[in-house]
Amino acid sequence: MQFASDNSSGAAPEIMAALSAINEGYAPSYGADGAMDRVRRLSREIFEAPEAEVYLVNNGTTANALSLATYCPPWGAVYCHEAAHVEVDECGAPEFYIGGGKLVKVRGEDGKMTPETLRRAIEATPQGFVHATQRGAVTLTNVTEAGTVYSVDEMTALCAVAKSYGLPVHLDGARFANALVAADASPADMSWRAGIDILSLGGTKNGCMGVEAVVLFDPSKAWEFELRRKRGGHLFSKHRYLSAQMEAYLTDGLWLKLAAIANARAERLADGIAAFRSAAFLHPRDANMIFAALPRRLHRTLHEAGARYHLWPHAAMLDGPEDDPVGARFVCSWSTTEGDVDAFLAFIRDRD
Amino acid sequence: MQFASDNSSGAAPEIMAALSAINEGYAPSYGADGAMDRVRRLSREIFEAPEAEVYLVNNGTTANALSLATYCPPWGAVYCHEAAHVEVDECGAPEFYIGGGKLVKVRGEDGKMTPETLRRAIEATPQGFVHATQRGAVTLTNVTEAGTVYSVDEMTALCAVAKSYGLPVHLDGARFANALVAADASPADMSWRAGIDILSLGGTKNGCMGVEAVVLFDPSKAWEFELRRKRGGHLFSKHRYLSAQMEAYLTDGLWLKLAAIANARAERLADGIAAFRSAAFLHPRDANMIFAALPRRLHRTLHEAGARYHLWPHAAMLDGPEDDPVGARFVCSWSTTEGDVDAFLAFIRDRD
Amino acid sequence: MQFASDNSSGAAPEIMAALSAINEGYAPSYGADGAMDRVRRLSREIFEAPEAEVYLVNNGTTANALSLATYCPPWGAVYCHEAAHVEVDECGAPEFYIGGGKLVKVRGEDGKMTPETLRRAIEATPQGFVHATQRGAVTLTNVTEAGTVYSVDEMTALCAVAKSYGLPVHLDGARFANALVAADASPADMSWRAGIDILSLGGTKNGCMGVEAVVLFDPSKAWEFELRRKRGGHLFSKHRYLSAQMEAYLTDGLWLKLAAIANARAERLADGIAAFRSAAFLHPRDANMIFAALPRRLHRTLHEAGARYHLWPHAAMLDGPEDDPVGARFVCSWSTTEGDVDAFLAFIRDRD
Amino acid sequence: MQFASDNSSGAAPEIMAALSAINEGYAPSYGADGAMDRVRRLSREIFEAPEAEVYLVNNGTTANALSLATYCPPWGAVYCHEAAHVEVDECGAPEFYIGGGKLVKVRGEDGKMTPETLRRAIEATPQGFVHATQRGAVTLTNVTEAGTVYSVDEMTALCAVAKSYGLPVHLDGARFANALVAADASPADMSWRAGIDILSLGGTKNGCMGVEAVVLFDPSKAWEFELRRKRGGHLFSKHRYLSAQMEAYLTDGLWLKLAAIANARAERLADGIAAFRSAAFLHPRDANMIFAALPRRLHRTLHEAGARYHLWPHAAMLDGPEDDPVGARFVCSWSTTEGDVDAFLAFIRDRD
Repeated sequence: MQFASDNSSGAAPEIMAALSAINEGYAPSYGADGAMDRVRRLSREIFEAPEAEVYLVNNGTTANALSLATYCPPWGAVYCHEAAHVEVDECGAPEFYIGGGKLVKVRGEDGKMTPETLRRAIEATPQGFVHATQRGAVTLTNVTEAGTVYSVDEMTALCAVAKSYGLPVHLDGARFANALVAADASPADMSWRAGIDILSLGGTKNGCMGVEAVVLFDPSKAWEFELRRKRGGHLFSKHRYLSAQMEAYLTDGLWLKLAAIANARAERLADGIAAFRSAAFLHPRDANMIFAALPRRLHRTLHEAGARYHLWPHAAMLDGPEDDPVGARFVCSWSTTEGDVDAFLAFIRDRD
Repeated sequence: MQFASDNSSGAAPEIMAALSAINEGYAPSYGADGAMDRVRRLSREIFEAPEAEVYLVNNGTTANALSLATYCPPWGAVYCHEAAHVEVDECGAPEFYIGGGKLVKVRGEDGKMTPETLRRAIEATPQGFVHATQRGAVTLTNVTEAGTVYSVDEMTALCAVAKSYGLPVHLDGARFANALVAADASPADMSWRAGIDILSLGGTKNGCMGVEAVVLFDPSKAWEFELRRKRGGHLFSKHRYLSAQMEAYLTDGLWLKLAAIANARAERLADGIAAFRSAAFLHPRDANMIFAALPRRLHRTLHEAGARYHLWPHAAMLDGPEDDPVGARFVCSWSTTEGDVDAFLAFIRDRD
Repeated sequence: MQFASDNSSGAAPEIMAALSAINEGYAPSYGADGAMDRVRRLSREIFEAPEAEVYLVNNGTTANALSLATYCPPWGAVYCHEAAHVEVDECGAPEFYIGGGKLVKVRGEDGKMTPETLRRAIEATPQGFVHATQRGAVTLTNVTEAGTVYSVDEMTALCAVAKSYGLPVHLDGARFANALVAADASPADMSWRAGIDILSLGGTKNGCMGVEAVVLFDPSKAWEFELRRKRGGHLFSKHRYLSAQMEAYLTDGLWLKLAAIANARAERLADGIAAFRSAAFLHPRDANMIFAALPRRLHRTLHEAGARYHLWPHAAMLDGPEDDPVGARFVCSWSTTEGDVDAFLAFIRDRD
Repeated sequence: MQFASDNSSGAAPEIMAALSAINEGYAPSYGADGAMDRVRRLSREIFEAPEAEVYLVNNGTTANALSLATYCPPWGAVYCHEAAHVEVDECGAPEFYIGGGKLVKVRGEDGKMTPETLRRAIEATPQGFVHATQRGAVTLTNVTEAGTVYSVDEMTALCAVAKSYGLPVHLDGARFANALVAADASPADMSWRAGIDILSLGGTKNGCMGVEAVVLFDPSKAWEFELRRKRGGHLFSKHRYLSAQMEAYLTDGLWLKLAAIANARAERLADGIAAFRSAAFLHPRDANMIFAALPRRLHRTLHEAGARYHLWPHAAMLDGPEDDPVGARFVCSWSTTEGDVDAFLAFIRDRD
């Protein structure tokens, strides 16, 4: 009963095999390895973006912070959803990398900004007024932190708002593959064609050991990005191990296959939960995360039985009246089996 | 003929095995994995430092920059050897993490500061004078960038100078295992007993895939370090893969065995080079790196034959008179075989 | 009809005289002048704080940003009212000086936090959770940005909340003298006795040419503050001109006399406005600022007649239906005369 | 006997008069005052640069740090003379404002870089090598810290070196007027025509109370500069008092007249010192500063008699053998009289 995070899962067999294979012999360090060339080629193909530049880093916080610092000046406001990872979960990494920027929270149901809430937030930053933080950049997240998925149309509409103010747009795609599968969209449609300038493309949560790609659709920013990456301590010496993971991940659609499994398991789980009397969804399920409330007593029983998942939005809500509904997040990954889901559902069903 | 860097080598079989083993099942993320507990225990034992705190990061630049930022305020001067990695090879990462600090170059032959050059540099920073950068911290490197090794006595003497000014001392131990083996010293003697407050303990160059430990001998700095690590984007989500590497590395003296191989190979190589008419050493060889000058024509021939190593101190010195001596750095690693060394020596011998 | 800001007023005659007097002969630079000694002595007396340290800077943004940077680490959250100058009007200076901190907006009517809204904001920052920004410091503003004044009791209650979480408290006292006069409180009661650790004490808006004091009630932070001031470019070379202003300002209660004039003029203005049919106050008037709505047509007429004040909360609201109420801020200063107020009131009365 | 610094002098009568005059009535704050318009007009005329933008700040450290931050990215190296104010006397302000940059020291006799030493320093920064700090900007100082003056030709030659590497050039002109007078050069020839992109134009040391101008010859950088100024806390609210000083300073050549006096006094002083048996110049005198060695006993006697000047390069060199030569810096200002100089010379002559 392991639904804590897709970060708790291991690496997929294809990734492990690639690491073993790349381990033979000597390889140039710091990204000059052949596998990185292949990652570059693959990414350009997959994104239908022959000019795009791609860099690998070790985690999502890094990918986001470096991307925002590349596109937002120190005096810039970054518009993000109020629940965004950059705002809530990165201990100020964006502000640190930007050099003292300000994150401006945009509201919206189910983890999504709307063109209206985004526009209102941008308008609230006075333009060309030297006393205020300036308009800097917009960052979206897909899959959102509420587990929902922006459609290509929704992303395009949000990017259009940003562009109407001349603002660049970053996409936090820690679960980009899950979003693609959920929306049945092409990588290009869900990124640069929608208006995304720079993408954090997650690998770690979806079957890699620890690698994220940053895709710059505007190659003129590439050298600055490289310097920021190095300066942040994020240029791997034995880079081939990052390259190998990402190469395997992008080869033959492995990333989409893994994401499809995760999404399918979450669907199965959601269908099961929907049948419970005592359960209620907090957000629609679009991809591999489910947010649902269960009676507190059920959480306690699950907890004692060793189930692993996060109460939501806060941990430590186990204390209180027995029957009160308490929110929780359940995440499926590439390694979640149908059996895992069914066992979990059976456990709850018996106590519903 | 692969002597470019210990970064060009792969990961040792024990490390790969540990990664495979840890890959099974689910594990808490962000350092809460059981392997990290074992790394903590092992480190404390090995360093005879039951209070020490240990954190894992992905590379040496990070380990150094975070360590210095933890010990040096933004207005502080960091005293380092003029050839130190922090000064020369990190694109300003220390200055970035410190928040605008100043690196002050200390002179010294063969990559080593002396108590006199260090004292002179510190004295040149006016004390308590608000117009000047303040005295902040000292950072040593062992193995040095010239391939030499500070003895425990030398380190103790340098730390004593630092301490006489109330300054903390960081040790860049990217090749700490090689230094230990070369000096036949204990980890405690070459770190906290000598006066080191915080240590960057290298794993990557010595047979790991990509992991460095930072050992804080003063645990009161630990929480600040954790926040700096997170904020820098250096807290791994699937942390177990870092833990597993470091656990295997420190278990049963693997780290020392691998370093002993690298050092022995470099000794064999140095012995061979010493026999050449046309060669001259630039620095004494103490560990796994050799700095020697060879006639330019020999470099050219080696280059054409596919040999990999760095001309030193600059690349791109292949142009010029045939017979001029041109410096080079040759690095051996755990994966360098006696056969590799002998073949390389034979190649040169034929053309000496 | 000049009610734009107390920043638009000139310097009081006593300040100008002090500047002329201090101009004679030579004086040590960078704060070693005798007038600064007298400022120190005066401040300690006035604040009944014999250990306090005092530093002078050129403006309020600087005083605030340096104060917050001294008390809040780079990963810290600064809790401020959502309308606070640090959040709205400083172009990210606090974030810059702190090294990438995060300002967290606290709600509250009439420019005031309440213990409840403050507590709620602090509680929303998870404690000891490495992924989130940490609790850093609280900053209050008195006179608030809405022109209201916290009583000593209100300040004490807010500081008590901060202290219950171990958080230091800064007071933005750009209009501290006006607040003192309004609350009929002693400087000590409205600062350290209430729980304030560091105070930005405004001079510029209240009859000085350009000087603000920062009062550190904990002298152990003084040296760090001095370094931050120098490093920010805020240590004046010909410091005597700052000292002379502050000395004159604090001598014989000049600061309170000037503030009393400004507050009295605002009271007279408010009384007049209260009599208009078409006017409505947006906030209570406590000190020298009035926030009131007037019909748009009246603003237009005033504007054309050369009246100077800010529409509130935004400029550029002159377009729209004639009779709609449109907010405005009217600020009186030490140089506002009763005649100025009466003329303005008469102008409106004729058109009410 | 007041030769400590031009910072110890008061403000010239014209400056005081301008401050009194501007004090009447109300004025828009934050630089929107009419006097600032006149400063802009005057500056453009004087510099024959109709597009130039001009901003006022409170001191030289600020002018330098903001200028360098505007032209040098965080990962850039700033090439400066090893004795430059930015390196020695600003407590890391440039590194702070740049966001962690590195100052690279260029050697040269008498406070001057040469094209060769500058070129060598630039060449030592590897180009396009991601591991190293990148080439960022060059900063010159005129009058130099050794009291010498670069001729227009010398400046042009240094700028040409910078430009050959595509690097922008900043001029620290804290004593720009003294340099102009000494070199008998036009402001345009000694700035943009020589290749200067941005100039710190000193007022404080030369008869102002506290104001420096930053002149941007490339107006496309102006808005960024304004934001950096505001964010650094350097936008004055009652800006008219900065404007009035600078307006008076630049009107009718006051700045040059004051500098001519200071230079003439220093010449008179140098001529006197040259006649002493026991004195020796450390550097040629070109402007208003003299560096000379006198026997230690003479310094002691002068010190006891209340003379004020700095021993050089360090204070606190009064201890030691009586007759040893000890360096000192003597600075004349606009307020130094011939009588002051003669009295000082007479005092020494009697003891020579």
